Amino acid sequence: MKEAKLFGEVVEVASSADANYTFIPKGWTVPEDVDYFHFTTNNTIYGTEIRKDFDLKVPVIADMSSDIFSRPVDVSKYSAIYGGAQKNLSMAGVTIVIVKNDALGKVDRPIPTMLDYRTHVEKGSMFNTPPVVPIYTALENMRWMKAQGGVKAMEKLAKERAEIVYGEIDRNKLFRGTVAEEDRSLMNLCFVMKDEYAELEKEFMEFATSKGMVGIKGHRSVGGFRASCYNAQTIEGCKALVACMKEFEAMH
Amino acid sequence: MKEAKLFGEVVEVASSADANYTFIPKGWTVPEDVDYFHFTTNNTIYGTEIRKDFDLKVPVIADMSSDIFSRPVDVSKYSAIYGGAQKNLSMAGVTIVIVKNDALGKVDRPIPTMLDYRTHVEKGSMFNTPPVVPIYTALENMRWMKAQGGVKAMEKLAKERAEIVYGEIDRNKLFRGTVAEEDRSLMNLCFVMKDEYAELEKEFMEFATSKGMVGIKGHRSVGGFRASCYNAQTIEGCKALVACMKEFEAMH
Repeated sequence: MKEAKLFGEVVEVASSADANYTFIPKGWTVPEDVDYFHFTTNNTIYGTEIRKDFDLKVPVIADMSSDIFSRPVDVSKYSAIYGGAQKNLSMAGVTIVIVKNDALGKVDRPIPTMLDYRTHVEKGSMFNTPPVVPIYTALENMRWMKAQGGVKAMEKLAKERAEIVYGEIDRNKLFRGTVAEEDRSLMNLCFVMKDEYAELEKEFMEFATSKGMVGIKGHRSVGGFRASCYNAQTIEGCKALVACMKEFEAMH
Repeated sequence: MKEAKLFGEVVEVASSADANYTFIPKGWTVPEDVDYFHFTTNNTIYGTEIRKDFDLKVPVIADMSSDIFSRPVDVSKYSAIYGGAQKNLSMAGVTIVIVKNDALGKVDRPIPTMLDYRTHVEKGSMFNTPPVVPIYTALENMRWMKAQGGVKAMEKLAKERAEIVYGEIDRNKLFRGTVAEEDRSLMNLCFVMKDEYAELEKEFMEFATSKGMVGIKGHRSVGGFRASCYNAQTIEGCKALVACMKEFEAMH
């Protein structure tokens, strides 16, 4: 929204900012005269996720950086889908764009050739020197995903992982999830100490680190903990976190 | 120039387009009222190179994509130096920018935050998710270059390689270089069959390929041959090409 405001009028259809983005607003409508509707499917910082494709009368554009390839998506419902590759696809250094031809060529101000998607469509993504290693990594990863059963299999695994970790978050007396249950992300599982155990946050972080848990500190704007469970996360990794939480609970 | 014309007035100070870009024009002047002077140090397609730093009254900006780290550069003479990493630094997927603070903030039209270099200065190049693998590769390569003796050592090697290959191009009865001698690139060494042996072009390409030479076909807009001798090229590689040219000459 911040960037779009530089070049046009922006309408915010809904926000849960007042509640620290802990849920996905419902019941909003999109004005019929907008050029497009943009949303981000997964919020990596606050741990919310929109796992549905919208049917709207205006073109839909989605940033799927952090949950693409974790579930089936009806791409026909989108004018454009884009994302960084570094979550479920490849390493940072390449991005993915799926765009309908009829969504292109609608900008009337001058823009650099490099920033016009038509350039990349026409040149087969080789207008610039392609980042070969990140692209090759994406290829190898897509082959792996396909061999596992594709995005349906990825979704099944994501749900299994989330069930294991959210299950423990909800059961454990020390912790609570931060996001409304129906809006919980399968990719970024956010939780905090319950208020009455707030003083244990630092201790749990150290305990978890000593048990080999890496990167579970929540984003600095949220605090608490964040278990990122992208496609590369294993069931065993989730079980290890649960064991860690159980042991810490027993200690207290 | 094509891109700059989208956003401002462009003055071309010199061109050797009429001579198929086979030399670097001399004796040109830069109007004193321009905002900056831009040049590209090495032309990968036509094989010309400007291996000097200009002293101008206006800010100098250089695209050094294809010869940065192949020779010492007085960076203090540039307001900005930029380049892709995939020649002498790392793999494609990361770019390098060296910029003076006082060259920034001079654009008055709205531009995306991502395209404002100040963003990357302020955020320590971590505004976006950094392409870790290409960056790490650059680090390892810079360590290697430093251990070899730095850019002075790189230049010495580049000159040795070029002397071997240009020496044979000039000696061999079948070939000729395409670029004026004083403007020849040390990175991309372009040559063609002499007119009287023009019909041997395809045969030499096949012969060279059979001898393990890879990628010596000239850019499609120039034809002929191009021996790219970036830092990764070895003296042995250059000698192998020379042996191949000598053998082909003996055959004819």
